Amino acid sequence: MNLTEIGTRAKNVSRVLAVLGQQEKNAALEAAADAVCRHEAEILAANRLDVSRAEERGMSPGLVDRLRLTPARIQDMACGLRDVASLEDPIGGVESMEKRPNGLLIGKKRVPLGVIGIIYEARPNVTADAFGLCFKSGNAVILRGGSDAIRSNSAITEAIREGLAGCSLPEDAIQLITDTSRETVREFMRMKGFLDVLIPRGGAGLIRTVVENSTVPVIETGTGNCHIYVDASADFSMACEIIYNAKTQRIGVCNACESLLVHRSVAAQFLPLLKARLDEKQVELRGDRESCALVDGMVPAAEEDWGTEYLDYILSVKQVDSLEEAIAHINRYGTGHSEAIITNSYENAQRFLDEVDAAAVYVNASTRFTDGAQFGFGAEIGISTQKLHARGPMGLRELTTTKYIIYGSGQVRP
Amino acid sequence: MNLTEIGTRAKNVSRVLAVLGQQEKNAALEAAADAVCRHEAEILAANRLDVSRAEERGMSPGLVDRLRLTPARIQDMACGLRDVASLEDPIGGVESMEKRPNGLLIGKKRVPLGVIGIIYEARPNVTADAFGLCFKSGNAVILRGGSDAIRSNSAITEAIREGLAGCSLPEDAIQLITDTSRETVREFMRMKGFLDVLIPRGGAGLIRTVVENSTVPVIETGTGNCHIYVDASADFSMACEIIYNAKTQRIGVCNACESLLVHRSVAAQFLPLLKARLDEKQVELRGDRESCALVDGMVPAAEEDWGTEYLDYILSVKQVDSLEEAIAHINRYGTGHSEAIITNSYENAQRFLDEVDAAAVYVNASTRFTDGAQFGFGAEIGISTQKLHARGPMGLRELTTTKYIIYGSGQVRP
Repeated sequence: MNLTEIGTRAKNVSRVLAVLGQQEKNAALEAAADAVCRHEAEILAANRLDVSRAEERGMSPGLVDRLRLTPARIQDMACGLRDVASLEDPIGGVESMEKRPNGLLIGKKRVPLGVIGIIYEARPNVTADAFGLCFKSGNAVILRGGSDAIRSNSAITEAIREGLAGCSLPEDAIQLITDTSRETVREFMRMKGFLDVLIPRGGAGLIRTVVENSTVPVIETGTGNCHIYVDASADFSMACEIIYNAKTQRIGVCNACESLLVHRSVAAQFLPLLKARLDEKQVELRGDRESCALVDGMVPAAEEDWGTEYLDYILSVKQVDSLEEAIAHINRYGTGHSEAIITNSYENAQRFLDEVDAAAVYVNASTRFTDGAQFGFGAEIGISTQKLHARGPMGLRELTTTKYIIYGSGQVRP
Repeated sequence: MNLTEIGTRAKNVSRVLAVLGQQEKNAALEAAADAVCRHEAEILAANRLDVSRAEERGMSPGLVDRLRLTPARIQDMACGLRDVASLEDPIGGVESMEKRPNGLLIGKKRVPLGVIGIIYEARPNVTADAFGLCFKSGNAVILRGGSDAIRSNSAITEAIREGLAGCSLPEDAIQLITDTSRETVREFMRMKGFLDVLIPRGGAGLIRTVVENSTVPVIETGTGNCHIYVDASADFSMACEIIYNAKTQRIGVCNACESLLVHRSVAAQFLPLLKARLDEKQVELRGDRESCALVDGMVPAAEEDWGTEYLDYILSVKQVDSLEEAIAHINRYGTGHSEAIITNSYENAQRFLDEVDAAAVYVNASTRFTDGAQFGFGAEIGISTQKLHARGPMGLRELTTTKYIIYGSGQVRP
């Protein structure tokens, strides 16, 4: 099926989904979850083929692990769909309605975006997760997953479509692009008449490609060069625990801490304490000259370290003379994701919150909390690092838009 | 000055503007308005040069009229700046703040977008208008106006910068790109590291170029192929007045009505009445075969008429058999701007509001009301026809974003 046909189907189905009731949507999500469980054997068989081909082609063990499905992971996918069913429906409410002097009643109604495109890598669970969120928010979804996961994604998509059909709902609420050629992806990114938004989920390279080539509005997710600034008045023990958590609790994620800034007046006292704590996980420290002079075994940092998202047991370390210098450094090298200050100064906490330009700015807490579930959204489609439309963790509400509805009684413009 | 230098200055200034208080911003807007009035003679002289060059080059009288400034139009610009000063500051409030089970206090704070790029055509008033809205919402603005208006735009920009400097505020809150080469515009559209959003203001061609070439998030504004559907139960006199208003009150605007749909059961009775009313302004009617058979002097419509934004005294006319057909036609040929139904059926009104996919959907009122001032926003930077970030008239709030601010007490993620 060509992309125009896929786009047309999605557009048509989006009209149906936009006016579905909450109960119908929830029943369909439950049915989709049931179908995924029912087809566990087929999905696992398809995934085994993907995994063995990926291994033959020399995919790294870390990526193979993301690609691999197990009965437990399939259960997780089904649970994810049921969890989304239990979330509140964001659609249909009128957020405000005002009477204008001429008698027009103007309301702002929450409606679906329409058709959402998702481009992702070889993580088959995204297929079910993205469908669940898009469907609950009343959107049709067109998925383009990595070619390494094509059999797994097809099997999951087929199961979900069967679940929808069983509820007499249009299967095309979820469509998977099975032609994984480069030309087709490029064409997909230019389907302006059909897609209302395109969300890339994956590494920095994927996101850059989508941003460079898409004519459809994109929501950028992902990259996080997150800093923690230890202020002069910080509680050292709290600072050590927060940095240890933000750096080592999970290293491959966008909200992990990658860079430490420390006020010069406390560096000599604090850095050895931190080093001892991070040694428990063999974290490599890459510091500026002054910090290397204070701590044995610290590696000298190069200029590019300040802008690097390591996603590894590595932390860059830099001393600063002031809060201003810390904020300026973060605003220069950060990616606008999550930034934290550890301080006991009321004034510095407030200034940091005001002046750091990022999706999430923390006082005395780990950057690892930037996450839809942790923020109480129940689920997330990604973490936006752009400022347009959505910023930070994106839940169901971020997959919606509004339209103005106007009740008149014959008004004309004078 | 090259674009990197311009971008760097804007970025730096945006940090200052983001934390300016409302009183400082309002004083600066008043000072900018004063400076524009003070430099009226220079602005008019610069504009005369632009106008005479444009006339020499054969610019159409309509466009020359948009380019031409007069003392009254300069007063309007200054008034516009003062009006924006009187609007409520959208920045700094925390819209919600919730305590999570782990004690984290997570708030969503309204903040500026940062740096806004505006690309526009030869309308010098946009220079002052766009600055006013961007500045009041705490953003730095980089303007790229049409080359035909370059002297006028420079003179207005210089006056505003003088006003800012007089308040000890950074002049670079407004910067104008004076190099009007094509390469520079293309480079401007790819200034991802510096611009947070790019807003094109102008005709369909300009908007298409920006959407096709920009790597910066774009807000599309503008094109409106707006429909009015006259339902079987419509009050004919109300329908005639609304269509007359929406078609003829101002023809060159995006919220003017371009296409009429009429229920077949009332076409024979209604269309002659409408024809008589629209004849007062010599509106050309282009109809489907059935409508042409009913009304003398109606021109047969071609397929492309259904998708044409005439911006002229022309209206396309088509009969439909049902509400469903009307909605399907609108969703197919409309541009998602403003759509209206004239009806006395409760059910049809509600279905039209639910199922038509547009920024503004009306019952029994003219489409001409889709406008920031008419909606009570005080001023607008444009009317968004996309679904991401902003839909419909964009006021000050649409030039802002949010950031999460999180107050912790040592929380780490388990």
